[in-house]
Amino acid sequence: MEPGIVRIAVDLLGGDDAPAVVVDGALRAVRADPDLHALLVGPPEAVGELTATLDPAERARIAIRPAERGDHATARANSTVGAAVNAVRDGTADALVSAGSTGATVTAAALGLGRWPDVRQPALAATLPGVNGPVVLLDVGGSLEPRPATLARHATLGAAYAAVTHGLESPRVGLLSIGTEPGKGDRARRLADPILATASLPCAACYVGLVEGYDVASGARADVVVTDGFTGNVLLKAIEGAYALTGGPPADGRAPRAAALLGVAGTVVVCHGAAHGRDIASGVALAAHLARRGAADQVRALLSDIGAEAPTDRYDRITDTEVRTS
Amino acid sequence: MEPGIVRIAVDLLGGDDAPAVVVDGALRAVRADPDLHALLVGPPEAVGELTATLDPAERARIAIRPAERGDHATARANSTVGAAVNAVRDGTADALVSAGSTGATVTAAALGLGRWPDVRQPALAATLPGVNGPVVLLDVGGSLEPRPATLARHATLGAAYAAVTHGLESPRVGLLSIGTEPGKGDRARRLADPILATASLPCAACYVGLVEGYDVASGARADVVVTDGFTGNVLLKAIEGAYALTGGPPADGRAPRAAALLGVAGTVVVCHGAAHGRDIASGVALAAHLARRGAADQVRALLSDIGAEAPTDRYDRITDTEVRTS
Repeated sequence: MEPGIVRIAVDLLGGDDAPAVVVDGALRAVRADPDLHALLVGPPEAVGELTATLDPAERARIAIRPAERGDHATARANSTVGAAVNAVRDGTADALVSAGSTGATVTAAALGLGRWPDVRQPALAATLPGVNGPVVLLDVGGSLEPRPATLARHATLGAAYAAVTHGLESPRVGLLSIGTEPGKGDRARRLADPILATASLPCAACYVGLVEGYDVASGARADVVVTDGFTGNVLLKAIEGAYALTGGPPADGRAPRAAALLGVAGTVVVCHGAAHGRDIASGVALAAHLARRGAADQVRALLSDIGAEAPTDRYDRITDTEVRTS
Repeated sequence: MEPGIVRIAVDLLGGDDAPAVVVDGALRAVRADPDLHALLVGPPEAVGELTATLDPAERARIAIRPAERGDHATARANSTVGAAVNAVRDGTADALVSAGSTGATVTAAALGLGRWPDVRQPALAATLPGVNGPVVLLDVGGSLEPRPATLARHATLGAAYAAVTHGLESPRVGLLSIGTEPGKGDRARRLADPILATASLPCAACYVGLVEGYDVASGARADVVVTDGFTGNVLLKAIEGAYALTGGPPADGRAPRAAALLGVAGTVVVCHGAAHGRDIASGVALAAHLARRGAADQVRALLSDIGAEAPTDRYDRITDTEVRTS
């Protein structure tokens, strides 16, 4: 457990089984981490007596910020996710967690916290247990039909995230396709591959070229696997389903049901819509981990190190600029 | 083991480790099935003394059709896969198996055997072990960027294939997406969903709507899962990778490394490029199974039953026509 008080805003109404599993997950996280404070954002009646099972010290680390249901789909500021974003913006919370509509959460976070100037589309990054360590898969649902330059930008986000969050040195970055020979894949991959081949990656990351589906589960050929949000989402859920059938990998036993949103000015964790209490708890723990080490700022700084300008469809070579201290 | 002499043409030069693993796989198949005859298509020197380990009766069931390497990528008729296609067309073989380039095999089969008139793009169908039985996933590599009408057509192919090959009654057909609510997914799914909802499916199949990644591994919500060849290919390999890490599902232990090509006038099985001997053997066994029951003709007849006209981008409702006997 990392030390340091951390305050996590939790969207009470996000998720298929909200608010019950959300409250359950938040309480699990508070019990597991003595320095973690939870700000439950939503209708107070949704919490009710659920905190009664906590001891006074634990209950003291839980607060409620009233918010209406709002129109979740449009991520209005007065929706619970919008209110959770506001809590991060006004400094009441260090990070937020929602199991609600991914689109609504990404939109609320981008509008409320702001996108990094050189990130057109934020990316959701999930970490899977690989044979040789963690494998970062992105995007898993943020950008369904990204432009090639966006795929390349997500590669830089993923490399920096793998280094900052998982301590990976010189992460190997691969582009998911249907074969490893150059030219394999659909139009988006054929266009993105040469852009990635010349892109400057942070943390001495190296682009290993095209990788295939099994590399996502094994991690044998890449530590960071880049794909569009549609493919990444179905892939993550397929691996989750396969693990559910088999008891999962020795390492952990299950695929992640929480992902970090990269590219917005704040710490945001999106949980699986079908998340159970323990999934919410692991999402809150991930948010606490990211907030405590200032992961978002570190990733942002690493991107600045390789030049604020994103790879573009004009195949610009990224040039290094003066290094900022992170 | 189904009775009946069956003759399978095997592309000796297809696959990463050809011809060694191809010959090995063909010999395994011949040993396992006393009524199976293998026609090895390629340079005779590639076979050499490898058949020496067989007893005379087994050796008598192996023939060689000399063929040059040719330009595999362009599937010239004088390539080994082209020669294997010719063997099926001239009646020397009942089916063919290749672990070579999927594109080259599909092209050679479409040109040499002909496509069904109402199939714009043939589909590769793989069968995975699900919790409640087999799950047919298609396309797994044939059409990387299919039109919505092609996805709908593949749904009819998959439903008929599931009924004919796996004996599934009223198969449940799902369209792979990132959520189950209508409207979830990228443009291709949003367009294909309403076409599928009104499409006439064979074998009393029912369209269950959008399904997610875990449904491919579990089969809990659909027996047939339709997607584009890019997503299907990475998905199949990701599940294969997950099973490789965990020992696989109790049922079988591994994901399939052979797929049936649907939509061409003949029986064609495509094996994984990285196929091992036992993968080739299972591909040959699949080809024998399909050929013995005349699966291709049965599927074709079932499609005719629901009207020769494929769903079109004009959202035409398919109308039933006179039923052909299959």
